[in-house]
Amino acid sequence: MQERAARTRERLVRAAAEAFDEHGLGAASMQAVSKSAGVSKGALYFHFPSKEHLADAVRGACGDRFAAKASDLMEAGESPVQVLMRLPGLTAEWLGQDVIVRVGLRLGREQQRGGHQDCDGRYLSRELHDLLSRLLRGAAERREIRDGLPLRTCASLLVAFLFSLECRAEESASREELLESIAELWSLLLPGMAPVADRE
Amino acid sequence: MQERAARTRERLVRAAAEAFDEHGLGAASMQAVSKSAGVSKGALYFHFPSKEHLADAVRGACGDRFAAKASDLMEAGESPVQVLMRLPGLTAEWLGQDVIVRVGLRLGREQQRGGHQDCDGRYLSRELHDLLSRLLRGAAERREIRDGLPLRTCASLLVAFLFSLECRAEESASREELLESIAELWSLLLPGMAPVADRE
Repeated sequence: MQERAARTRERLVRAAAEAFDEHGLGAASMQAVSKSAGVSKGALYFHFPSKEHLADAVRGACGDRFAAKASDLMEAGESPVQVLMRLPGLTAEWLGQDVIVRVGLRLGREQQRGGHQDCDGRYLSRELHDLLSRLLRGAAERREIRDGLPLRTCASLLVAFLFSLECRAEESASREELLESIAELWSLLLPGMAPVADRE
Repeated sequence: MQERAARTRERLVRAAAEAFDEHGLGAASMQAVSKSAGVSKGALYFHFPSKEHLADAVRGACGDRFAAKASDLMEAGESPVQVLMRLPGLTAEWLGQDVIVRVGLRLGREQQRGGHQDCDGRYLSRELHDLLSRLLRGAAERREIRDGLPLRTCASLLVAFLFSLECRAEESASREELLESIAELWSLLLPGMAPVADRE
């Protein structure tokens, strides 16, 4: 994609996230998105033929945020289990500051399966599940977690937990309450995840 | 409610669940629901002014199923933690046999928050969260789980897990695969849930 087109697309995705954040997916208008992005309606419809395509792009940008952050942390030398354990806390921070993550997680949580969409869509829950599964496999290879840990079920629980953070933030939980839940999550899960040697 | 009206309502809810199961919420028609329930269109609209009201009734009937089963098991003498541990397995069975639970969980998982609905609606996730929290509190009082277990976070993880069972069943996971996931769930959670004496 040409650089200019990529910038336009990015502006539209952010404007859409802001509109969905303020008005909800149902009430936000395509007109308001093109206006607040400073992009013509023709250019908007060229990039995104429908609101569902915009919603999909916001979910995708949110998934990319998680994947990029995990990759950065790995490159900075953190181990897979360290990265895994940082993701819920990062999510809590992002929910307060980053409209792409906040709205992306909300749309991902509400994402309908089945034939109600007019575009194929990126399944944010599946992307997060894949990311967490990769980290868990890395942790298993380094023996940072116990042998035989059920990786898929563990990844599912963690993904569900990330979505529940967004849900609670939307119900006005404070950052401190979210951080407390995260500490509680690990107090619940770590005894079942730790290598056997660590438990003795 | 008169008994006859209650029976009509029940027939409509079941017919709606079957229509949503077969065609999806978007494509199912009110006409088809009234026809398959053998109820006039006028009577349908008297009970349920919109498809969203029907969806809400299916979610509600699903929540009632869980609450009634938990109550039956308690009355039959099972302890709160026993009931709690049976709910995922019961869900796996119901998903194969009971269109109300299958569609109720699906609609509950996809339930949107915020202003997109034309009726207030019952939040299935909240009802299940309340039910599991009550069971966890009962288990804590009997010291079946460890002191200081974070009950709310534990209930959230379990609710998320019940929804994930529906999601995997919809993606064609077999009953055996669901039961395997349930065994994995407990292998992950029980070490963090058990009273300290049990771990030694």
